[in-house]
Amino acid sequence: MNTSAASADVVTTRSEQRCFGGVQGFYEHHSAACAGPMRFAVYVPPHKEGAKLPVLYFLAGLTCTDETFVVKAGAQRVASELGLVVVTLDTSPRSARHPGDDASWDFGVGAGFYLDATQAPWSANYKMETYVVDELRTLIEARFPVDSDRCGIFGHSMGGHGALTLALRHPALYRSVSAIAPIVAPASVPWGKKAFAHYLGDDVASWRAHDTCQLLKDGKRFASPPLIDQGTADKFLDEQLQPERLTALAEEVGQPFNFRRHEGYDHSYFFIQTVIADHLRHHAQMLSKPA
Amino acid sequence: MNTSAASADVVTTRSEQRCFGGVQGFYEHHSAACAGPMRFAVYVPPHKEGAKLPVLYFLAGLTCTDETFVVKAGAQRVASELGLVVVTLDTSPRSARHPGDDASWDFGVGAGFYLDATQAPWSANYKMETYVVDELRTLIEARFPVDSDRCGIFGHSMGGHGALTLALRHPALYRSVSAIAPIVAPASVPWGKKAFAHYLGDDVASWRAHDTCQLLKDGKRFASPPLIDQGTADKFLDEQLQPERLTALAEEVGQPFNFRRHEGYDHSYFFIQTVIADHLRHHAQMLSKPA
Repeated sequence: MNTSAASADVVTTRSEQRCFGGVQGFYEHHSAACAGPMRFAVYVPPHKEGAKLPVLYFLAGLTCTDETFVVKAGAQRVASELGLVVVTLDTSPRSARHPGDDASWDFGVGAGFYLDATQAPWSANYKMETYVVDELRTLIEARFPVDSDRCGIFGHSMGGHGALTLALRHPALYRSVSAIAPIVAPASVPWGKKAFAHYLGDDVASWRAHDTCQLLKDGKRFASPPLIDQGTADKFLDEQLQPERLTALAEEVGQPFNFRRHEGYDHSYFFIQTVIADHLRHHAQMLSKPA
Repeated sequence: MNTSAASADVVTTRSEQRCFGGVQGFYEHHSAACAGPMRFAVYVPPHKEGAKLPVLYFLAGLTCTDETFVVKAGAQRVASELGLVVVTLDTSPRSARHPGDDASWDFGVGAGFYLDATQAPWSANYKMETYVVDELRTLIEARFPVDSDRCGIFGHSMGGHGALTLALRHPALYRSVSAIAPIVAPASVPWGKKAFAHYLGDDVASWRAHDTCQLLKDGKRFASPPLIDQGTADKFLDEQLQPERLTALAEEVGQPFNFRRHEGYDHSYFFIQTVIADHLRHHAQMLSKPA
């Protein structure tokens, strides 16, 4: 029995509910990467028996769980229409605890930053990159009707950082990428500095590999031009998000983006639900092209 | 200064956020009917300065608040497209407390059943019918760009009961009505019997005026044929909802309905979001006709 089959064997179904002709399911399994139980959710749209569908991974922001996007984003309607499987997951391990892991909302529990921690005690189980790109992906491909060659990734805020960096680090895995109000330069802003110092240590050179702007400077490129949406009334815009770092760099390094500003929109799921259809259509279009 | 202006003066804005080109607001005010603070939410779609728009009131189910539908139903997209104002409100008073009001989830706090209680202590502030049809409506018409002649009402579960009974009791106020998984015969099912006994007392004759099926038998009619949606996998179907009581009666009394069954759908907001667009279009169509 190989690893993926073993993982697939221990998935618990928490609930499965019909939605827009498909099924919204919530699941739990034991994660080797995160050294404990992890929850994830999958929307499977209506499809023909035996079909293999494109799959999108959504990475959520600080404090969210696998349920937040599922409940608040209104993505199922368009996923049903376009025939997309949408996977969501938790934002950190939650079972094994470390001192200080719930002392603040922007670090520790609910704030895994989608990287593999190298510093104790976090390195024992904060392995969110391995979880997303390897363990969960393998499990999804083993259990759900997805086409492993048509895989996209997107996210919001901290999850936008996750989507952009994982897509740059693993361009062969993710053919389409998008982000809503992403952290684009974590090594240069308070949220990222705090998290990276704990997870990756004081050697800031090690942070480059998890910072979208630095990865672009270091020559990494996306498999296809990302769509990025940003609200102008986002309270985190100036201090934490600083999208102009990315837009300036994009031209300099020759990485095309579709970057859109939305007047008066904030950082909430009311913004996400407003643009969610555009994101799903972006991915569907990119994933419909030959690899 | 008249009553509506006085009410309008004390509304506190909790938040206002841009969504689908309009504004989703959350508010609080002092309610005379409920003898304490009440929260409500309003979605105002994009519109021309000075326009007066059709307005829909959504009544939520047991345990919900003014926020539940706003966050989970995905209604703003279609309300924006159709130019509908959508108002939501809490499911009971919450500040003044009575013994036993939080002993169960289907009675007391979060379970006002959209009627005016006649029995102490509930009669002191559980005046949800007066709140919906009079106090909140007056406030909304004073503060928001709505056309008081184009008003619809809809709801889910206990709120479906509320929408159907209030529409039958006040047909001049509500030109369109719809319900998702409504309680249609509360006087005959456990949820309704428990609530009515406390709020209205032991004289079951007094219950007739708050029971959709009984109101229809007593000659009340809707201003326009209601749309009703019901999932077949709803766990409350057989014991609490019993829609066949209504469908049988509809033919007998000559009240047309558009009643739809949806195979495999449950009682949750995953069902609501699946049919929400149809409900908003139903109301928009009814409200576009001359009164």
